[in-house]
Amino acid sequence: MSDANSDLLPEGLEDRLPRDAATATRVMRAIQTAMHGHGYDRVMPPSIEFERSLASRMAGIQSRRMFRFVDPLSLRMMALRSDYTPQIGRIAETRLAEAPRPLRLCYAGQVVTIKPDGLNPAREKLQCGAELIGADNVAAAAEIVAIAIEALQAAGASGVSVDFTLPDLVDTLAEKALPLEPSQIEAVRRELDTKDAGGLRDVGGEAYVPLLYATGEFDAAIEKLSAIDAGGALASRIKALREIAASLNGTARLTLDPSERHGFEYQTWFGFTLYAQGVRGPVGRGGTYRIAGSGAGEAATGFSLYPDALIDVIAANEPAEDRVFLPLGHDRDEAARLRSIGWRTVAALSDADSAEALGCTHVLGAGGPENV
Amino acid sequence: MSDANSDLLPEGLEDRLPRDAATATRVMRAIQTAMHGHGYDRVMPPSIEFERSLASRMAGIQSRRMFRFVDPLSLRMMALRSDYTPQIGRIAETRLAEAPRPLRLCYAGQVVTIKPDGLNPAREKLQCGAELIGADNVAAAAEIVAIAIEALQAAGASGVSVDFTLPDLVDTLAEKALPLEPSQIEAVRRELDTKDAGGLRDVGGEAYVPLLYATGEFDAAIEKLSAIDAGGALASRIKALREIAASLNGTARLTLDPSERHGFEYQTWFGFTLYAQGVRGPVGRGGTYRIAGSGAGEAATGFSLYPDALIDVIAANEPAEDRVFLPLGHDRDEAARLRSIGWRTVAALSDADSAEALGCTHVLGAGGPENV
Repeated sequence: MSDANSDLLPEGLEDRLPRDAATATRVMRAIQTAMHGHGYDRVMPPSIEFERSLASRMAGIQSRRMFRFVDPLSLRMMALRSDYTPQIGRIAETRLAEAPRPLRLCYAGQVVTIKPDGLNPAREKLQCGAELIGADNVAAAAEIVAIAIEALQAAGASGVSVDFTLPDLVDTLAEKALPLEPSQIEAVRRELDTKDAGGLRDVGGEAYVPLLYATGEFDAAIEKLSAIDAGGALASRIKALREIAASLNGTARLTLDPSERHGFEYQTWFGFTLYAQGVRGPVGRGGTYRIAGSGAGEAATGFSLYPDALIDVIAANEPAEDRVFLPLGHDRDEAARLRSIGWRTVAALSDADSAEALGCTHVLGAGGPENV
Repeated sequence: MSDANSDLLPEGLEDRLPRDAATATRVMRAIQTAMHGHGYDRVMPPSIEFERSLASRMAGIQSRRMFRFVDPLSLRMMALRSDYTPQIGRIAETRLAEAPRPLRLCYAGQVVTIKPDGLNPAREKLQCGAELIGADNVAAAAEIVAIAIEALQAAGASGVSVDFTLPDLVDTLAEKALPLEPSQIEAVRRELDTKDAGGLRDVGGEAYVPLLYATGEFDAAIEKLSAIDAGGALASRIKALREIAASLNGTARLTLDPSERHGFEYQTWFGFTLYAQGVRGPVGRGGTYRIAGSGAGEAATGFSLYPDALIDVIAANEPAEDRVFLPLGHDRDEAARLRSIGWRTVAALSDADSAEALGCTHVLGAGGPENV
């Protein structure tokens, strides 16, 4: 090699080699099949766009994580996609503005960021998800959570659990039931984020302390939340969460963390985080939101999955696939027939090729595939 | 919208909307299934890499078409993938250097260039293909051409035709049979490229003029090429082309243009271009080559497909898909059963939703899906 260094990949970027890539392909297809089955139509935005168009539909700080460069043709600033959802919002509000609502769209592909995300060193990730545009009611939320669970299970996830949250909880309570001065709201939110009861008292949010204990298994936690909500300010939210939970009919373990805000900066009344057994960190999240960049913004509900860590777990446990070696001069029609029923074939190209060396499990003999 | 301009996409970049994206998904899967069936393992390189690593494995001028930018983390120059093949070569020569040969790898995804390619204004394209690394004999070439044809046909292409070429034809002939001074070789190549008989004579390449007529339908053209090759310098090449053609067994129309070099700057003895009926321009090309960037370079054979234009043709002719509307309070088990046998469902989220408005072809009734 002329320069060994030139073959190293940048930090946080990786090749998926055959075993992992095969699992990634199967996982992404299973997720897409689930979304497709529920009437979600895939759209494929370009991987680069004008930076301004992407950033105007993103959280200000999020947009700083995009790779940026000048387009030598237009001399305008472009950026590499770091999240699909602003692109789906753009498509819904422009080219599909006249399409009937609710509009069901889905997407699948790569996203790239300059800096890795928290503890995960990866700068390129797979992202796939579904957006239900023009609806953010309980039925919309229940459909979106159900499809997210179904998609993960179809992909091979076991022990899926869903953590519900109420992203605008503090705003709702502060308005009437547990009044706060506008200047206190941010402080109360911050102390809830760190789950600090002492801190909450210090900033005058003593009335919010019980929220810290309305967490955990859904059925018990929602009871505690109901008990707090003496004034009824949360009655409709609690009813909605109970309806969503009931509609899921035991397909996943449910928990509640009503004041969780991390990752829900843009959600409105409902948010959820998805976990799978054996996978470190969330595998996805979703909720209700308003599409940014278009005045008040159209109501929407959606989820995003980040299946990389799930793929790693599944790939590590998958058995090797069968492959049948086709000796020189094999029956080509029989080989084609085997492929048509799902066999993978590996044809000899010279006398030097052998089933063993090429990792084949079978050899095509006179009577069909025979074990090596 | 705050700024209508911010919603325009840069020149040469497009969203694929539902109909086209559905066809693109099907076409890409069909191509991948064909490659997978023949034992090709997918690898997934990152969409960005160090510019130096990509450029060192590409034609000098090709690398100028990549988008480039500084990585704020490593402070090194990165580039956006404009072609998958240098990445596959890198993987084969580094992380899979010890894997048994021949090594069968495949890939599928997007590539992006600064400038559009010839008449096609697109700056982002789909690319998928297969690389057979460690083999460039007749059997390797025959396998690669056969899979390319099978993949295109599986994707829905009709009237597939393959144009064979001999990329090193002039070098081979100039050495002995039809001698040229080293200084004449480039001029003869150029005149052959422009198919200019007068120009060929002017540069002292009169003996090469008959090559201009050894083109067209394969059987007739290969006869003409044999007639030219009095000295036998091309005997092994002609025999190889005849063997590849015979192995294809009538699965595609075959033509020959032995001096065609455009797009084959890196091929060794064999190259081919793929066309499909109704699709303007080539849908792919391939051939034998040596992997760049590693001394003499390992022998390899492969093809790349660029299915965008094929997808456009297929999408324009596809009938609308069936979708079954699920009224409020529908039987959820029956809906799940319908999805499991391939139906797409669209659930009502409120009384305002209707099958007609949402473009459904069927409604779930008591006895199953009924026509709208």
